[in-house]
Amino acid sequence: MEQAGCRSDQFWEKGIKRSILTKAGLSVTELSGVEPNPRIESVRKGVALCHTHKIDMVLAVGGGSTIDCAKVIAAGACYDGDAWDLVLDGRKIKAALPIYSVLTLAATGSEMDSFAVISDLSKHEKWGTGAQALKPRMSILNPEYTFSVSQKQTSAGTADIMSHTLENYFTPVRSAYVQARMCEALLKTLIHYGPVALEHPDDYEARANLMWVSSLAINGLVSSGADVTWCVHPMEHELSAFYDITHGEGLAILTPFWMDFALREETAWKFAEYGRNVFGLTGDVDMAIGREAIAATRAFFRQMKLPATLHEVGIDGTHFDMMAQKAADGCKGSFVPLSAEDIKSIFTAAL
Amino acid sequence: MEQAGCRSDQFWEKGIKRSILTKAGLSVTELSGVEPNPRIESVRKGVALCHTHKIDMVLAVGGGSTIDCAKVIAAGACYDGDAWDLVLDGRKIKAALPIYSVLTLAATGSEMDSFAVISDLSKHEKWGTGAQALKPRMSILNPEYTFSVSQKQTSAGTADIMSHTLENYFTPVRSAYVQARMCEALLKTLIHYGPVALEHPDDYEARANLMWVSSLAINGLVSSGADVTWCVHPMEHELSAFYDITHGEGLAILTPFWMDFALREETAWKFAEYGRNVFGLTGDVDMAIGREAIAATRAFFRQMKLPATLHEVGIDGTHFDMMAQKAADGCKGSFVPLSAEDIKSIFTAAL
Repeated sequence: MEQAGCRSDQFWEKGIKRSILTKAGLSVTELSGVEPNPRIESVRKGVALCHTHKIDMVLAVGGGSTIDCAKVIAAGACYDGDAWDLVLDGRKIKAALPIYSVLTLAATGSEMDSFAVISDLSKHEKWGTGAQALKPRMSILNPEYTFSVSQKQTSAGTADIMSHTLENYFTPVRSAYVQARMCEALLKTLIHYGPVALEHPDDYEARANLMWVSSLAINGLVSSGADVTWCVHPMEHELSAFYDITHGEGLAILTPFWMDFALREETAWKFAEYGRNVFGLTGDVDMAIGREAIAATRAFFRQMKLPATLHEVGIDGTHFDMMAQKAADGCKGSFVPLSAEDIKSIFTAAL
Repeated sequence: MEQAGCRSDQFWEKGIKRSILTKAGLSVTELSGVEPNPRIESVRKGVALCHTHKIDMVLAVGGGSTIDCAKVIAAGACYDGDAWDLVLDGRKIKAALPIYSVLTLAATGSEMDSFAVISDLSKHEKWGTGAQALKPRMSILNPEYTFSVSQKQTSAGTADIMSHTLENYFTPVRSAYVQARMCEALLKTLIHYGPVALEHPDDYEARANLMWVSSLAINGLVSSGADVTWCVHPMEHELSAFYDITHGEGLAILTPFWMDFALREETAWKFAEYGRNVFGLTGDVDMAIGREAIAATRAFFRQMKLPATLHEVGIDGTHFDMMAQKAADGCKGSFVPLSAEDIKSIFTAAL
């Protein structure tokens, strides 16, 4: 039986021995060097390997980029055409090779969802796709595998999980009460353990809680029934598509500026709920608590040593018009309406 | 294809038409009148029906009693011996017919777990059993099906869900942080919506949130990794086994008295966490907040019009020695150690 291993570099050396697979009688074909913001070129390489070696299943060993790449490879292997079609339109994914993962970075939650994000940097395109067939059959989450994650990636991963949770939390549907309370549970966990993991990378308790939240934030638990439409992710995808920056850092930069934009009289109740239930803020005036909650969000990202402006990650206003135009499509129906102009103003504020 | 329907009485009239099944080409054999605290006699009847009619799958239409009964029927149909064996020892459950459910009462969470509780009242025995094969393949949770649930059952159901959550919450494992925060999310939801459902039985939002929490409290989400051992349930099972009282009412009576017993210097941190995060209590002294949290728990059950003492449900001290002896086995390893003597003292306090 042939098995394709998509892996991040130097992974097997971390203690997971490739020989476990070969000893189990599996023959392994490896695709190494999957990039952050995984690219369609890697997917195409993987699909070709699947055809050449008649691969039966795909094992991703790495973080979200590796898993996302593995997912689209698995679907591409069952598709008669270019895999980019599947990125542009998830409905074209009718089948995929069985997908498994060994997670080495708490961040995207790809280990427990049916989505993947792939970039074609030659076109400045970064799109998410999804299909039931992309959900991993099994993922191994061993917190010890994340002990060696760098400070930068620990921070960016935590910001990514935080953004997933916030995207699911900021919905106008007030009746999704238990979902909102669970979002707050996840947010409190991130705020509690993010700094611990940064300070003590081998703290099992911190790594375990972060890892579990990475899956719970995005597996449908806190979004089902809450009529959620994400908007910070579509905006960030344009940053990564044009500048190939670290996804979690882009989210950490944009989130507070989106909050500044979204806080207004009619949304103040939600920001106040966030402030009271996540940061323990007190007071009677929703708008005031909302502003404090945004400040607390900024302070948390600062504590996590994340960048706070686009300048810090080398982005200027050159492409804002085109980026905002493309992002606007993905933001339709989000918590507050966002026109291309609104998005450009958020990008500009974040400079 | 034959299908067994275990149902609570008068259910089909609620809008779920038996004809849906027959129109789909299924032939249906019905077992009606499953009792609260479902009995082994009903299980045996169901198993006999399965054999006689060569049943292929079991559909439970009702609350937890109906689903529990259906589960053990499904296992009994695949077991060469008396079904009571399977209640006494879940390891004997090697297979079961496929189980499906349509839930009509938010309470036990049986719709999303692999457990069942069956009684043999002739022997004053009530035991839980469990096996992977008992997990329903699919459960339909439509909150509207619970609009007609009585005040008494709405209160008892809410107390049951609250007890499941508290049993999972009171663990000595401090590192199960995200699990604890999610327990608090569920508890807040119960406290928020229990009284609403009592007052407005057809409030969709309240019924939907309670129904979803009934599943989440017990499906493993908040207990996995938290090294949980339940103790109030084993104690309550003795009340029901000897006096056939409503399970949720027994839990509402015992829970605060167990808390009185369990609150002490070394456990005060957990009770204070409960008080601060669930009831919003403030203060620096853990013991004081713990006591206030127990009082708040009692007040909530009172608001839900639940009984507060054993006398109110017709129980006196006659069988306490035997009941405490039997319960002690099930409580081994719980949050605070409980000897038979301790349990008797809790029963006595609850008189």
